[in-house]
Amino acid sequence: MNVQVAINGYGVIGKRVADAVRAMPDMDLVGVADVTTDWRVRTATERGIAVFAATDEAGAAMVQAGVPVAGTLAELLAQADVVVDTTPKKVAATNLEVYRAAGVKAVFQGGESHATTGHSFVAQANYATALGRDTTRVVSCNTTSIVRVLGALHDAGLLARARGVLIRRATDPAQSHQRGIMNTVVPEGSIPSHQGPDARTVLPELDVVTMAAKAAHTQTHNHFWTLQLTRPASREEVLEALRAAPRIAFIRMADGLTALNTTVELMGDLGRPRGDMWEVAVWEDVLTVEGDEAYLTYQVNNEAIVIPETIDAIRALTQTIADGATSMALTDEVLGMRREFLPTPVPVTAD
Amino acid sequence: MNVQVAINGYGVIGKRVADAVRAMPDMDLVGVADVTTDWRVRTATERGIAVFAATDEAGAAMVQAGVPVAGTLAELLAQADVVVDTTPKKVAATNLEVYRAAGVKAVFQGGESHATTGHSFVAQANYATALGRDTTRVVSCNTTSIVRVLGALHDAGLLARARGVLIRRATDPAQSHQRGIMNTVVPEGSIPSHQGPDARTVLPELDVVTMAAKAAHTQTHNHFWTLQLTRPASREEVLEALRAAPRIAFIRMADGLTALNTTVELMGDLGRPRGDMWEVAVWEDVLTVEGDEAYLTYQVNNEAIVIPETIDAIRALTQTIADGATSMALTDEVLGMRREFLPTPVPVTAD
Amino acid sequence: MNVQVAINGYGVIGKRVADAVRAMPDMDLVGVADVTTDWRVRTATERGIAVFAATDEAGAAMVQAGVPVAGTLAELLAQADVVVDTTPKKVAATNLEVYRAAGVKAVFQGGESHATTGHSFVAQANYATALGRDTTRVVSCNTTSIVRVLGALHDAGLLARARGVLIRRATDPAQSHQRGIMNTVVPEGSIPSHQGPDARTVLPELDVVTMAAKAAHTQTHNHFWTLQLTRPASREEVLEALRAAPRIAFIRMADGLTALNTTVELMGDLGRPRGDMWEVAVWEDVLTVEGDEAYLTYQVNNEAIVIPETIDAIRALTQTIADGATSMALTDEVLGMRREFLPTPVPVTAD
Amino acid sequence: MNVQVAINGYGVIGKRVADAVRAMPDMDLVGVADVTTDWRVRTATERGIAVFAATDEAGAAMVQAGVPVAGTLAELLAQADVVVDTTPKKVAATNLEVYRAAGVKAVFQGGESHATTGHSFVAQANYATALGRDTTRVVSCNTTSIVRVLGALHDAGLLARARGVLIRRATDPAQSHQRGIMNTVVPEGSIPSHQGPDARTVLPELDVVTMAAKAAHTQTHNHFWTLQLTRPASREEVLEALRAAPRIAFIRMADGLTALNTTVELMGDLGRPRGDMWEVAVWEDVLTVEGDEAYLTYQVNNEAIVIPETIDAIRALTQTIADGATSMALTDEVLGMRREFLPTPVPVTAD
Repeated sequence: MNVQVAINGYGVIGKRVADAVRAMPDMDLVGVADVTTDWRVRTATERGIAVFAATDEAGAAMVQAGVPVAGTLAELLAQADVVVDTTPKKVAATNLEVYRAAGVKAVFQGGESHATTGHSFVAQANYATALGRDTTRVVSCNTTSIVRVLGALHDAGLLARARGVLIRRATDPAQSHQRGIMNTVVPEGSIPSHQGPDARTVLPELDVVTMAAKAAHTQTHNHFWTLQLTRPASREEVLEALRAAPRIAFIRMADGLTALNTTVELMGDLGRPRGDMWEVAVWEDVLTVEGDEAYLTYQVNNEAIVIPETIDAIRALTQTIADGATSMALTDEVLGMRREFLPTPVPVTAD
Repeated sequence: MNVQVAINGYGVIGKRVADAVRAMPDMDLVGVADVTTDWRVRTATERGIAVFAATDEAGAAMVQAGVPVAGTLAELLAQADVVVDTTPKKVAATNLEVYRAAGVKAVFQGGESHATTGHSFVAQANYATALGRDTTRVVSCNTTSIVRVLGALHDAGLLARARGVLIRRATDPAQSHQRGIMNTVVPEGSIPSHQGPDARTVLPELDVVTMAAKAAHTQTHNHFWTLQLTRPASREEVLEALRAAPRIAFIRMADGLTALNTTVELMGDLGRPRGDMWEVAVWEDVLTVEGDEAYLTYQVNNEAIVIPETIDAIRALTQTIADGATSMALTDEVLGMRREFLPTPVPVTAD
Repeated sequence: MNVQVAINGYGVIGKRVADAVRAMPDMDLVGVADVTTDWRVRTATERGIAVFAATDEAGAAMVQAGVPVAGTLAELLAQADVVVDTTPKKVAATNLEVYRAAGVKAVFQGGESHATTGHSFVAQANYATALGRDTTRVVSCNTTSIVRVLGALHDAGLLARARGVLIRRATDPAQSHQRGIMNTVVPEGSIPSHQGPDARTVLPELDVVTMAAKAAHTQTHNHFWTLQLTRPASREEVLEALRAAPRIAFIRMADGLTALNTTVELMGDLGRPRGDMWEVAVWEDVLTVEGDEAYLTYQVNNEAIVIPETIDAIRALTQTIADGATSMALTDEVLGMRREFLPTPVPVTAD
Repeated sequence: MNVQVAINGYGVIGKRVADAVRAMPDMDLVGVADVTTDWRVRTATERGIAVFAATDEAGAAMVQAGVPVAGTLAELLAQADVVVDTTPKKVAATNLEVYRAAGVKAVFQGGESHATTGHSFVAQANYATALGRDTTRVVSCNTTSIVRVLGALHDAGLLARARGVLIRRATDPAQSHQRGIMNTVVPEGSIPSHQGPDARTVLPELDVVTMAAKAAHTQTHNHFWTLQLTRPASREEVLEALRAAPRIAFIRMADGLTALNTTVELMGDLGRPRGDMWEVAVWEDVLTVEGDEAYLTYQVNNEAIVIPETIDAIRALTQTIADGATSMALTDEVLGMRREFLPTPVPVTAD
């Protein structure tokens, strides 16, 4: 029988998890809980998703607003094996008790602390240690990308030390009328920024320091890395290590993909839902290796990258699939994840 | 037999026309012609669309770059009944001769002048006069929206005079790394801006004046109108006139759709390809009527709004469907166009 | 003896009023009160302005932070004839009682309601009715510009009806790292927006309706107007009416001043403090008259335009100068206000 | 007798050099040459600066436009000892011949290559080697900042290796209506970006690599550095090395200076002309030292930082002042450069 999944919070992440769960052959979406009555939750209804009221007050407001309410959060949880908590930051600690009392496993997101669950998850790094746990935390978009890319080089025995600068999007498109920054850059007020240490909750052996800043755009993050290698290596060796790891795709300036917006447009052209890019997009032709140092830049779709990880986390907690590689392969196939976004050039030969 | 359609220019409009043509039951897409070799044209290949070289030089470069080239523009035209010209502004006059020589009908876009074709097209206004013509011009995004909305009020006998201010997006997302404006507004240098007069190429009886400015955003235009009515009217009468016309959808501030970005997000949530909104989105709860004046604001997706019009123009030129209403109904159904984006609230009753 | 002026609130408006008061020959700045301890208030100290603590808590925090505190708000008021209240919106009602108790006259800003003071002020329109009053309210930047421009045409007997669209800056540059909008336009949720009705608190006879939207920039507003004239008029007549009114300056697209940022840059080039433009900048070569309708667009520096009005309001309340025209002339001369920003072209003649 | 200075190009840099030259007690500004006829060159006339025509065509157009033309470029050069070339990139090579033929020394800007002059200039690093030369090149804004900051640590014997990420402003405010990027980040297409190697034209012994990206803002650059020190050091040692070097000022997040726009606003509050910041602003309370690594971030006003360097370069070429430190001290005093922008907090003591 399929895993029964509940989602608490139908926002930027929650709605994407809902789509992904519905696409998976081994999962059923029981419904989503939320507290709003506006267009956001009403698109869930529009798409045939059962909407539950996360609180009694919300339920009354939803009924008042004409949103068909399928029941309470408790009723949602009663039908679920696992809940994905995509509520705003810092309410998870309270929710955790609710989930425990309901006897459902819970997947939290990166806005919560490692301490909340005691386990932080990136599928390629530690699926095995999440097996059968009651809870885990899928780390944030930035941290997920760091673990994917630095983890790939670490696994290849190439990485000694990583120093990164993260140019973050200031806010999400759906919120950009209410908050955001304009015509400025906002550097994080302390070094290291939290992403580097956070990556070590998944891969403690990484020697990683990050600095971060918010820039005046809404779509996707852009990371720049200086990597101290364990030894002098060739550019091809570094590329090979990245190619060997999952959920990294290559893009190229030479293809005209020269800025964050071009890749966003490409996702739309490929027919991706909401223009989502679940892969970390590494600029292959910018990657440079000089002696024992490597330099690279990549792009992270902060709205989408944790979706496949969340799907895998559901399977790990519920032990639906015992092996991380198998789960990842299924997730990636169903979502349509790729290693290259463009067809390999096949030169036409004259005959 | 289905109409055989060629597209010359695989850019912002061309790629959307390609998708729409492929979706229509009475049309086949023969292929697209372009001059680039970068990711944009390669996504056509990726999606199974035959790519032709618009020029000999482009063909050589494409072959060099590994893009599978299906043939020349001439070869593309030879297989087509009609070509949709979505090349950049101001090259259409030259292309027109090519299309004439090839014996194919041609649909141009709003970047061209009315004089080029002698006919300007908006389906609801003048489908009939385009029937069997060799060429027509689908007017620009802004002008299309003006004809739809003002035309609706004109048809209802309500509109005496319209004065509009158009806050335009500065550039398209796909181009926003190369050109655009930053932290400023750029007013058009003369009044009236061209959109008002252009609407009169379709509806000569409109008394319309527009002023325009580019603002610092990339997605969708925002129009504000002061309308002198022919007589004092109720708000409901004005709304009724808009409801009676096709391709206008209502949105509401009360639903949380309070800014351009929220509607863009909604389209993604509804699963629209590329987040496209083909309808003019009129804010129902902002529309105000005071005596014999009405005031309203609406949102226009400049990348998408002309797509259904282009499909109808193909049918009008080729006389596939003799009746505009029938063509529009087919187009709208296949694309999934709507009058309301959210489910009508159905209050839950206690029993 | 000079008028003794206190300022409560050293923010975007308060710091500019401080500079202007210090420049006026008939005024002395006693000091400014504020509640912050950060760089903003410390620049006051840096510039030799006495800083008072607006509250006891603020005073303690300032002392703690090393800001030299000259005293309490009560002590500041005790030395002042008039206070300019530039505190954030909606606290004025409370402050009003404090000022009354201290026996000082008070000038409020446009964030407050007309009802708070019972008098709304624009120097050219109603200086006389403010003479000797205890309080007045300098209307907001947008409203001030409306009264200046529409008032000019009204005084010339030309204006029957005005319908405007205001493209507002989303937030001030000093706040743009904390709040703002990104890549969107936010239309006001109701029509008319408040600026039109607000202009009628100064000029009740205006027939004016405004619609407004916030666009994604931080500097200056851009207004577009459709004006119904009382009779067919020539373009020169309309220009002449504007030339006859104070505090309006002409700019021209033909001079390369084609967007809001160019005028901002021009102010810096002219050596204006903080790049301030106190005048309404009307695009002379965009202004169009067709029969009995006129169309125009102008730019409003929201941080600066109310400064001269505030200076005049101080004089009106304190009856330092009995005549509005005399006060305005003095203000304008001291600030260096202009009717043209560029030297009149003087063709070089060959001899 | 004062050095007679000509400026060729009255744009973003040229107009600032003009102001600085006029402020210096040992320099006279003969005039500026340009090719435009619009508001930019007319503000020169407005401010009493003689305008020369850089070309015959420009001269004719200026006369036509009513700009008083003082003569030709040749006539300007004939009166000058030295010319500052602030023309657009890549025309300097041609101009160099003109200057040589006229027998005037020439200071170029960072848009030109090192090879053009054979000498690249940052006052604190190599004033002495520019003494009496015919030409030099003041390096770009980014490179100047790198030499100032890394040079300071190098001089202190602390710097082994520097790896930087530069978040650049996309375009200048004066150009932001015509070109720019919107809602994206544009990474440089290759690593290293040119700024690191360029710093070595001044300080060849630096081990420096830079990556760069353009972000969607118009004002000032933001650099992030990972520094390998020669030995474990304390934070205070690193700060001390920076304090010992000229033209670096400290700012602090704790003062509320938390983003690029806040510092820009501060410059206006300090009464700086055009809001210029000639110093590199290093965030003191963000600077972090861990063992033998240091991390820091600073802000660079790209329009202003090279102005003092240009003044010093004029003196070095013309040997007005033989000693770099003396020249820099004079420049800094006249401009009003500072090491701290805010008054040192003086705790008020209760007695």
